[in-house]
Amino acid sequence: RADAARAATALTQDDLKRLAAVRAVEQVQSGMVLGLGTGSTAAFAVAEIGALLASGKLSGIVGVPTSKRTFEQATSLGIPLSTLDDHPVIDLAIDGADEVDPDLNLVKGRGGALLREKMVEAASGKFVVVVDETKLVTGLGGSGLAMPVEVVQFCWKHNQVRLQDLFNEEGCEAKLRLNEDGKPYVTDNSNYIVDLYFKTPIKDALGAGKEIAALEGVVEHGLFLNMATSVIIAGSDGVSVKTKF
Amino acid sequence: RADAARAATALTQDDLKRLAAVRAVEQVQSGMVLGLGTGSTAAFAVAEIGALLASGKLSGIVGVPTSKRTFEQATSLGIPLSTLDDHPVIDLAIDGADEVDPDLNLVKGRGGALLREKMVEAASGKFVVVVDETKLVTGLGGSGLAMPVEVVQFCWKHNQVRLQDLFNEEGCEAKLRLNEDGKPYVTDNSNYIVDLYFKTPIKDALGAGKEIAALEGVVEHGLFLNMATSVIIAGSDGVSVKTKF
Repeated sequence: RADAARAATALTQDDLKRLAAVRAVEQVQSGMVLGLGTGSTAAFAVAEIGALLASGKLSGIVGVPTSKRTFEQATSLGIPLSTLDDHPVIDLAIDGADEVDPDLNLVKGRGGALLREKMVEAASGKFVVVVDETKLVTGLGGSGLAMPVEVVQFCWKHNQVRLQDLFNEEGCEAKLRLNEDGKPYVTDNSNYIVDLYFKTPIKDALGAGKEIAALEGVVEHGLFLNMATSVIIAGSDGVSVKTKF
Repeated sequence: RADAARAATALTQDDLKRLAAVRAVEQVQSGMVLGLGTGSTAAFAVAEIGALLASGKLSGIVGVPTSKRTFEQATSLGIPLSTLDDHPVIDLAIDGADEVDPDLNLVKGRGGALLREKMVEAASGKFVVVVDETKLVTGLGGSGLAMPVEVVQFCWKHNQVRLQDLFNEEGCEAKLRLNEDGKPYVTDNSNYIVDLYFKTPIKDALGAGKEIAALEGVVEHGLFLNMATSVIIAGSDGVSVKTKF
């Protein structure tokens, strides 16, 4: 009777995020150098790693955080930290994503940490993405939510216009990201973020990534293409894993 | 006798820079939007534009400066200024270069303004480069002097190592640019500069530009490829002009 009552309680989105995160952390082994992602789902993974270290089930871990926020969370949990400068080769990175397409390409960076995430995850032998099922899309940009582009502050409007023009076909609207006080959001690297909103999914994500990157003053974009090695998806039906190759 | 004495006086490098700059400014017409370069040669062009405005020989000019330094110089000369945000299409840009190869490809940015220069010059219908003859090279990187790469401060050492590794064949040494006080040089965009020094010229500049730009955390690089529409070269023999197409 108690079991039946528990089963009838619907899982919250946070429950799903935690489920996926804990499953990913099962791949962590003592002695690994770990890329630590940013955002609500990644935070569950960092918390789990901290708990396993505290209990002695893991040891010898070195974490490379992808944001100041993650640095602070990991520090508070006693996870030993380093940087890409000192650990340029990372065994395993775990991070969330804002969108996942059928080829395991991602949109990331709604949390604003896209550049550091991309640097760390590009240096990782394995990159495990953890999401709840609401993040699955048939094509990138298809959620209608922001695809972030980090740009230098200098003449950001010029790049806003150019970015919007790149995606005329997809019905793109490009907006400067603002804080609650109405001032521009500034990244950990002192740049601005232009968020792209698409009416229809991006037709050629690989081409789009190249075109965006070629704009002078664009520092990085939120398309993470051919980077994820597996994606762990938590849904109401349970946890599933998609792996590339 | 007086003429003979004058002819015998060798032209200094500054004389040559001024000659080239003044020749470039002959292309400026009233009403133009102008990209204003940065560095010792570009400064002669900005000074000449200011003088022509003051004398009434030019009018209706709007300048788009490529650095804080050029902004200050132009302001002090009373040149009306704007930005790429307000003037995204520029008629003519005039700027110096650190190296010019036979195809009019350039190395720029030893002055540290490469990103803003590239943004402005990429938006210019015509881009006239002004140099003295010492800047001509048979291949980019061939001067043995710095080819700058602007990188985010985050994990700059990681990118220093990766940049150096890209050019093993050319015998590349990658060094963080420092100020006289030994602290890192910080660009107008709050980034660092990694200077690349080559033993032999870059074999495939176009390929190199793409590989450098693809590194996460690289904001811009000093290879200006297929951008210059003409180059004005001042030498001891006089002033010559090379034009593309």
